[in-house]
Amino acid sequence: MASFKKYRVDKSFHLADIKPGATPFAEGSRSEQAERLDALALDLDKLQNLLHAEGSRKVLLVLQGMDTSGKDGTIRWVFSRTSPLGVRVAAFKAPSLEEKARDFLWRCHAVVPRAGEIMVWNRSHYEDVLVPVVEGWLDKKELERRYAQINDFERLLTETGSVVIKCMLHISKETQRERLQDRIDTPGKHWKFDISDLDARKKWDDYQRAYDRLLGATSTRHAPWYVIPSDSKTHRNLMIARLLIKTLEDMKLKERPDDPALKGLIVE
Amino acid sequence: MASFKKYRVDKSFHLADIKPGATPFAEGSRSEQAERLDALALDLDKLQNLLHAEGSRKVLLVLQGMDTSGKDGTIRWVFSRTSPLGVRVAAFKAPSLEEKARDFLWRCHAVVPRAGEIMVWNRSHYEDVLVPVVEGWLDKKELERRYAQINDFERLLTETGSVVIKCMLHISKETQRERLQDRIDTPGKHWKFDISDLDARKKWDDYQRAYDRLLGATSTRHAPWYVIPSDSKTHRNLMIARLLIKTLEDMKLKERPDDPALKGLIVE
Repeated sequence: MASFKKYRVDKSFHLADIKPGATPFAEGSRSEQAERLDALALDLDKLQNLLHAEGSRKVLLVLQGMDTSGKDGTIRWVFSRTSPLGVRVAAFKAPSLEEKARDFLWRCHAVVPRAGEIMVWNRSHYEDVLVPVVEGWLDKKELERRYAQINDFERLLTETGSVVIKCMLHISKETQRERLQDRIDTPGKHWKFDISDLDARKKWDDYQRAYDRLLGATSTRHAPWYVIPSDSKTHRNLMIARLLIKTLEDMKLKERPDDPALKGLIVE
Repeated sequence: MASFKKYRVDKSFHLADIKPGATPFAEGSRSEQAERLDALALDLDKLQNLLHAEGSRKVLLVLQGMDTSGKDGTIRWVFSRTSPLGVRVAAFKAPSLEEKARDFLWRCHAVVPRAGEIMVWNRSHYEDVLVPVVEGWLDKKELERRYAQINDFERLLTETGSVVIKCMLHISKETQRERLQDRIDTPGKHWKFDISDLDARKKWDDYQRAYDRLLGATSTRHAPWYVIPSDSKTHRNLMIARLLIKTLEDMKLKERPDDPALKGLIVE
């Protein structure tokens, strides 16, 4: 199996070095890949049960990416075998009036994972260092302050029992074109299409630059970023499933010990 | 297939008439039942996708039952093939200080389903017409008032696009004894056992009476109760999966219509 190292963002990282069409984590035929993904989803369910049984630590998976990069699809397939008892999703849209009236981390803090839980953020606080940057609403100083606030917030989470992994779903501009066009041309898919997606697409290069910058500034030892080549949906799913499994395995989860006081107790 | 009618609570209903060990919805061999459940779970995923695509109505599934009746297990198996994108679980424990400082429906209202979503309540507002009744904290008049408040609240939900179904997982006292004893005797299961479960067990008959009363008082046309024979875990899962599928089918879900304005649009 390929190594995650190349895809983990460090100081020397440049987004342009990662090919969106690469498929290092998808070996074998199509049917082998589908079987593999289902097996990984079942492995993930076992590890989730153990996380729940341990009952203390938490996992936060942050998913970011351009429109059509496959955040919903990732959640659908990677978590196709886990239980809603232990996996929750929070989706972040454009902030509401209530949310705008607070600091940008307020709505995120409200939905951090509980003990024993995997929480998936479908978009996240990173939207607040993307849209405002591309639209020119933030000056450089304020942006640097936000990066630092994000790093502090994520350190709080990791220091209090959460493991945080962040995935940027990396697609090419051409792949996005195909997927948007497909939503327009396929009957029954219009509801997935938002005309404002085309405005963001016009600023593609600005968004790539904003991503490049935030990845470098917020990939920390405690909460690293991984860039996931995502032109291939299968590769994207397999790579994220494997990354998550490796993360959970590295946690060395253990069930809570038995309570000696219960030994010999008879229920009447 | 058996009919749900017998298990739907109406004015002439008595909990004692339903045998916890009945298995009307579990035909075939063990392996056939397992295959059937997996197929139903996949059907449920398809219907959930359609609910999401419709994007307007909601489903609320309320699960109630004595300790070890299998609320967690139901969620694990009935939703073993659905995505956390569209199915959420809210678990209600003993109320916190913040929750006690409000009316008993406050914490429930906070987690009603969103448009396109199935929300599962693992315990619910019905705990507030169980524990306080058995413990003698509520007089008859206050209890009747709570039943009416519950019916009004659920009518609000159904009048604003939710379909509400409520399942009481019905087990025998002997089945509970076996399952509690198993949690004590099996290494690694102690964390599932709470010594206070034994106190509630001592008041078994009081709880059955409180259930009998609330079922009759709050099974309405808009939000009916079903009693699920649950001594057999497989039967419980199959019956609830089928009930939920029937409920979703009866909703006659439809995808949102295409937008004529998008016809011929080319993505640059």
